[in-house]
Amino acid sequence: MDKYEQVIELAKRRGFLWNSFELYGGTAGFYDYGPLGSTLKRRIEQIWRELFVIQEGFMEIETPTVGIENVFVASGHVGGFSDPLCECKACGEAFRADHLVDKIVPVADALSNEELDEIIRESQVKCPECEGELGETYEFNLMFKTQIGPGSGRQGYMRPETAQGMFVDFLRLARFYREKLPFGATQIGKSYRNEISPRQGVIRLREFTQAEAEIFIDPQDKSHSNFSRFADTAVNLYSDEAQDKGAVEKMTLGEAVEKGIIAHEFLAYQIGLTNLFLQRVGVSPDMMRFRQHKKDEMAHYAIDCWDAEVNTDRFGWVEVVGIADRTDYDLSAHATVSKTELSIYREYPEPKMVTQFVVKPNMGKLGPLFKGKAKNVAEALKALSQEELEQDNITVIIDGEEFTVPRDVVEFAEETVKVSGENIVPHVIEPSFGIDRIFYTVMEHSFDEETVPAKEDTEEEARIVMRLKKEVAPVQVAILPLLTREELIGPAKSIEVQLKQKGLLVSYDDSGTIGRRYRRNDEIGTPYSITIDYDTLEDNTVTIRERDSMKQVRTSIEGIEEILYDLMYKDRDFESAGDVL
Amino acid sequence: MDKYEQVIELAKRRGFLWNSFELYGGTAGFYDYGPLGSTLKRRIEQIWRELFVIQEGFMEIETPTVGIENVFVASGHVGGFSDPLCECKACGEAFRADHLVDKIVPVADALSNEELDEIIRESQVKCPECEGELGETYEFNLMFKTQIGPGSGRQGYMRPETAQGMFVDFLRLARFYREKLPFGATQIGKSYRNEISPRQGVIRLREFTQAEAEIFIDPQDKSHSNFSRFADTAVNLYSDEAQDKGAVEKMTLGEAVEKGIIAHEFLAYQIGLTNLFLQRVGVSPDMMRFRQHKKDEMAHYAIDCWDAEVNTDRFGWVEVVGIADRTDYDLSAHATVSKTELSIYREYPEPKMVTQFVVKPNMGKLGPLFKGKAKNVAEALKALSQEELEQDNITVIIDGEEFTVPRDVVEFAEETVKVSGENIVPHVIEPSFGIDRIFYTVMEHSFDEETVPAKEDTEEEARIVMRLKKEVAPVQVAILPLLTREELIGPAKSIEVQLKQKGLLVSYDDSGTIGRRYRRNDEIGTPYSITIDYDTLEDNTVTIRERDSMKQVRTSIEGIEEILYDLMYKDRDFESAGDVL
Repeated sequence: MDKYEQVIELAKRRGFLWNSFELYGGTAGFYDYGPLGSTLKRRIEQIWRELFVIQEGFMEIETPTVGIENVFVASGHVGGFSDPLCECKACGEAFRADHLVDKIVPVADALSNEELDEIIRESQVKCPECEGELGETYEFNLMFKTQIGPGSGRQGYMRPETAQGMFVDFLRLARFYREKLPFGATQIGKSYRNEISPRQGVIRLREFTQAEAEIFIDPQDKSHSNFSRFADTAVNLYSDEAQDKGAVEKMTLGEAVEKGIIAHEFLAYQIGLTNLFLQRVGVSPDMMRFRQHKKDEMAHYAIDCWDAEVNTDRFGWVEVVGIADRTDYDLSAHATVSKTELSIYREYPEPKMVTQFVVKPNMGKLGPLFKGKAKNVAEALKALSQEELEQDNITVIIDGEEFTVPRDVVEFAEETVKVSGENIVPHVIEPSFGIDRIFYTVMEHSFDEETVPAKEDTEEEARIVMRLKKEVAPVQVAILPLLTREELIGPAKSIEVQLKQKGLLVSYDDSGTIGRRYRRNDEIGTPYSITIDYDTLEDNTVTIRERDSMKQVRTSIEGIEEILYDLMYKDRDFESAGDVL
Repeated sequence: MDKYEQVIELAKRRGFLWNSFELYGGTAGFYDYGPLGSTLKRRIEQIWRELFVIQEGFMEIETPTVGIENVFVASGHVGGFSDPLCECKACGEAFRADHLVDKIVPVADALSNEELDEIIRESQVKCPECEGELGETYEFNLMFKTQIGPGSGRQGYMRPETAQGMFVDFLRLARFYREKLPFGATQIGKSYRNEISPRQGVIRLREFTQAEAEIFIDPQDKSHSNFSRFADTAVNLYSDEAQDKGAVEKMTLGEAVEKGIIAHEFLAYQIGLTNLFLQRVGVSPDMMRFRQHKKDEMAHYAIDCWDAEVNTDRFGWVEVVGIADRTDYDLSAHATVSKTELSIYREYPEPKMVTQFVVKPNMGKLGPLFKGKAKNVAEALKALSQEELEQDNITVIIDGEEFTVPRDVVEFAEETVKVSGENIVPHVIEPSFGIDRIFYTVMEHSFDEETVPAKEDTEEEARIVMRLKKEVAPVQVAILPLLTREELIGPAKSIEVQLKQKGLLVSYDDSGTIGRRYRRNDEIGTPYSITIDYDTLEDNTVTIRERDSMKQVRTSIEGIEEILYDLMYKDRDFESAGDVL
């Protein structure tokens, strides 16, 4: 069993992750979060929310997961969100063509479909399922398609990312933030990707959760007002250049900006924040790096992109976050398709005097001449050049019809005018988090096996312990009456109530031996267990056990909720919690 | 403007609700939650979670929104989740046939398609859009369809309810809860309903959020161990009988169970909890009732169903929650389609002695006779009756092949055996909440207009105030420097930080006159505003204003975060917060 298998086995057994539709044989690319998994995931999301929504002030919105066609025409997903698909002519099984040849050529995913077909032909690649002949490679769009409404209703797609919801709402958001840059919006929600043949378990899902921020900034000023917060933070940088050398460099974000490795402060700040987030939820700092997109892999419109990658046992380095400066690409694309200006108006600190060519149609004369069309004629005149306006008879075309305009109905001149502001199309900084992959990474990086040495009354034994950060543990305190006896259940239940009222996540467990229950709680990462035994009935004390050290202290029931709260949230030293046993 | 229009206008203007895809002209049945709406919605969900997940202990799970066909074959959605659709032969517009005739006949939604067609023909109903002739009515399935994977991939559907995820995971859940009834699971998530022609704004959405609990209980014992909690709670009951009389009765839940109006305690408890939830998030108690499904509208398998209904200005009484005893219908349906036993094993308190007919094939003799098939033969024999086993030559059929078994290789007898438990198919109690409708109701029931009398320095004026419960308000405290001056912004910003660190939801607002900012915060339901003025610089005090009463107190900046926290969460009396102005 590799570590992936070990983690997934535990995850299934303990209620973190289950294969979706298991009752019906399952379907690749879907996972259920069980009771503990769902709690762990929500706690990870909550920390993200705290950092990005509450602290940064990028308010969360919620837009539909079903989208209409125009949105994804503008975003480019209708045209270009696809993988090369190759089907077996014999059994009909579908494969990603680049995966079929990735052991034969070094960069299979960079090849065209024609090149892929050539390699398949030349190397005589056959169907991995049935050895049948493979058909021609074609592009398969990865959006789930659906119809909105009946009959020939509207074409709909399940969104491939949450981002488009924020772009489509740009004008509403700009008004909400009173057009003051920078501002941002976030979403945490489901996205979909109809993978051809997903084979990497929880790493490649057809339905997954993203947490994305779209931050709209001044294209002329990409500094960050709070950059000092992360300027001295050292991270593992795997820049374009470093990749050529094959060596990650540890460097502060301040230095990276100064040296021009990271494009600017605003992007570097997001890397700092991502670094903070990943460590806080429980990704190991030394199993994590920021990899820059190389010039040839970066989207043509982007200025700079960095992926947060984590090291996993089976899959190696896996991207879990993408952080990009997408320039004005998204807003401009939506502006074009929707024929709506997507910009904000910004006043200059002082009005500027600007010399410009001004056309002044005389409406008093145009009105009688052109009646209902006078306004359109005037608009058309304003668009003409000086040369055109100097003709004896000026010609304009309106809705395909030609109109001749006498020269004396329009004046023009170079004038110096006062301009008090301008329209700006903001640039977009996008940190985009794959929550499911982060979830899995947290489980793998927390997974630990150790040998517990023999003691007087126990033999040496192996234990599995999920060293989850306290802040994300789905159960914070386990309440364990030593035996299933009325007299022990009573006080145990009342401690349960005490702790719940303090807002702690508590589980009550009275089945099996105490040793087995400790192991069970070690496996699910419960930081503290409280044992109620016969001494409890004598002197009102209980044992608290710490997961990682397996140390135990004895303390009074009175005020125990405060002790546990302080252990959980205030880094109280464990040995101060009672008499060390 | 009716109240719906007023609420929606405010909701759009202030960032609660936006039409989805507005940039592209919008699409009926979809709404975006803006920054404030998203926060309000999340707070409503959080209260639900507190009551159902944390207090009741029904752990949350998260299953995909895309589902495979078998799931919805078992649930009945593939067969029966449809509305009658009628298309115009001229313009192609689609209509719900029952809506086309609901002004002509009293109970249009109870008619068959043939009956609908007859009324359309007889009453000469034409297309409401173009007066064209209408086609024949047919059933339109309301699930959004999609394909999972490429080519002739698997048929998929967007789930019409979250419930099925819990049923499909039943065996996993049963193990997680160690098979101890009652246990339950919950989901808060998106569901989809491809409405033919949704025209009720946020009340009828194609994509919506549900919060559902599926509680598995003992079919023989539907009492509730904590029923006393709600026994004395009086609610507006609109029972089957009361509906015949046309009068809602106020009655305690204890009485309703005693009189047999509500089927049993477990269901009544859920009604009590729902009542508590709706009031806590801000539904008006006197605009709310529980309506029982009448015998002829209730699903055939259900024992008893109650809808929580709320009164709205435009739509009248609207269902926001459904609470049903669904018996073993769902588990049995999935058991049949998946060919898997969905039950729990329960030990009897004492083993029972049971007399039963026992067949004992002699494997020692069967082995040599039937070799590899011996086991199958033995199984087949066990299923035979005494009469069949008494034949001289016993015949069994295995995989279509007939085998003759000599009589002496099998013994049988009536025996008294010890049985220590039994398999039980639990019954399901399902409270199902429509979060979007509850969200809208909270806004409408909180919406208030009042006239503020003239004071020395102000004229009489109208104000709109959203009287949101503090617990759900998306902004808890507004920080308002009197003027946009450096010397006031400084202290204002530092108060903002103080309050944020205390975990309060704060907005900083320095644009427009102070009066306008008060009105803006009244409109979004901000319970408290803090104003920083020139006196602040003198004596370090600020003004706190209360939304509902518009009273103001003057208090010191020092410790102001504690005061606001206590006002928000500890019902501190406002006038104790400082010197009343």
